[in-house]
Amino acid sequence: MKVLVTGSAGFLGRHTARYFADQGWEVTGFDQVDHDEGKTIVGDLTALDSISSAVAGNDVVIHIGAIGDVYLAGEQPALAASVNVVGTANVVEAALAHGARVVYASTWEVYGHPKFEPINEDHPTSPDHPYNITKLGGESMLLAACRLRNLSGLALRLGTAFGTGLRPNSVFRIFIDRARRAEPITVQGDGSQGRQFTHAHDIAGAFEMAARSELTAMALNIVGPETVTIRDLAEHIVSRFPTELRFGPPRPGDVPPARVSADRARQLLGWQAQTSFHKGLDELIDDVLRED
Amino acid sequence: MKVLVTGSAGFLGRHTARYFADQGWEVTGFDQVDHDEGKTIVGDLTALDSISSAVAGNDVVIHIGAIGDVYLAGEQPALAASVNVVGTANVVEAALAHGARVVYASTWEVYGHPKFEPINEDHPTSPDHPYNITKLGGESMLLAACRLRNLSGLALRLGTAFGTGLRPNSVFRIFIDRARRAEPITVQGDGSQGRQFTHAHDIAGAFEMAARSELTAMALNIVGPETVTIRDLAEHIVSRFPTELRFGPPRPGDVPPARVSADRARQLLGWQAQTSFHKGLDELIDDVLRED
Repeated sequence: MKVLVTGSAGFLGRHTARYFADQGWEVTGFDQVDHDEGKTIVGDLTALDSISSAVAGNDVVIHIGAIGDVYLAGEQPALAASVNVVGTANVVEAALAHGARVVYASTWEVYGHPKFEPINEDHPTSPDHPYNITKLGGESMLLAACRLRNLSGLALRLGTAFGTGLRPNSVFRIFIDRARRAEPITVQGDGSQGRQFTHAHDIAGAFEMAARSELTAMALNIVGPETVTIRDLAEHIVSRFPTELRFGPPRPGDVPPARVSADRARQLLGWQAQTSFHKGLDELIDDVLRED
Repeated sequence: MKVLVTGSAGFLGRHTARYFADQGWEVTGFDQVDHDEGKTIVGDLTALDSISSAVAGNDVVIHIGAIGDVYLAGEQPALAASVNVVGTANVVEAALAHGARVVYASTWEVYGHPKFEPINEDHPTSPDHPYNITKLGGESMLLAACRLRNLSGLALRLGTAFGTGLRPNSVFRIFIDRARRAEPITVQGDGSQGRQFTHAHDIAGAFEMAARSELTAMALNIVGPETVTIRDLAEHIVSRFPTELRFGPPRPGDVPPARVSADRARQLLGWQAQTSFHKGLDELIDDVLRED
């Protein structure tokens, strides 16, 4: 079976491409930039020809490619709209043209302020930042094509991903990089906002299960079971380095905490997170230290 | 006071530009194509420079410009995403750069299948077609900029607009054009799907009230009070011409009927629809007949 992984040069894309290859899939990557791992097509999601020729011949597209950097999306909303919504519309057209199935990397952040908890997939969506607004736009375009045009596809609403190889501007890397230089770590607000951090390896597993499944036209939550506060995260990192914890003012537009349930993914897809938060975090810290 | 009306060559844009001019505003239009009424800048919403130079010097932007043709949006979702989401993100940047207020033409169709009725602005949004998905994407981008970046703006979720000068592929024009040629009118499904048709003149009035208001960071329903079924519409047209009514299979992706409440717009903006459906429809039929 052949799979195209878009965004394959990014953090989640690399984990995913590697996981599929380990499971025996014939993997092609697609990204704006080349990278040294595996076969990669360098292309542009916002150009239909570019993504369409890449999709041709594949059974499944794992569509991760996006402006996935929340800060960049906030600074350049039109760019986020172009890559995340127009780009996904192009992936949909390409998949329809070539008979491929699409699995889309959506985000738990599409829910916005919780109306009830734990949040399941029937909870209303109310995104409030250019990042999650455009990710929901892409998801909606995919699911509309499944319902209206018989595309086979699934959207996975992912928890906040972590693992080795995270972007330098992720909260994990910022904290670790400061701590190892013995600089204080600053938490915005009181650090009580919780996240169901979900390990990239577990997310890659969900993509692979979704690729093999025949479920279509729906969204499933893929989140780790533990709610970890930013304060927990910071304290665990501080415990490993000679530094201290400080608190700063809250940031506007920060996504509030919410408990999200992955029960439906367990029932329909057989998926469960395997990696505990502290195990994954220690692995990430060790990996950053090894880079030196 | 100066206003820029985007989409000014379209049906709703023309009504709106005319209304603002009648109220004493200095009106500039913005569209892909020039038209004979008033001052128009020919430009492209998807190019930031183009829209930004048009916004400069205006107090308010009435942002109607969009792929507003549902059929075209269904056939070219990426185009709809580009104009409706990226284009609105560009309008937002331009308005922030030049200190203008934005009033956005959204649609009642963003709600999707009703969870409760009448639908007020707290009802969840769940659009299911590239047209309403991308219109909600644009709306969300505007409201996020209001909350996160202090833009002054309001989104109006408009009922299905009608009035003189409708597009030839609108259901009104299709029915009237067939009826006047004595061809039968075909209703898809049983024709029981209701619409709160809202006259373009009333919508233009809502835009003008919204332009003068200081309300910001919210969406308001702007819909006529009468629920008219497609069957009612067809029967009224049939009653004026020597033709007959037929019924065809329902179309996939048709938006289901829903009662939408404009109470909040009445309370906060003082807006109410003034034009009754049959009066507006007779005026439209007379106008089409005069074109010959």
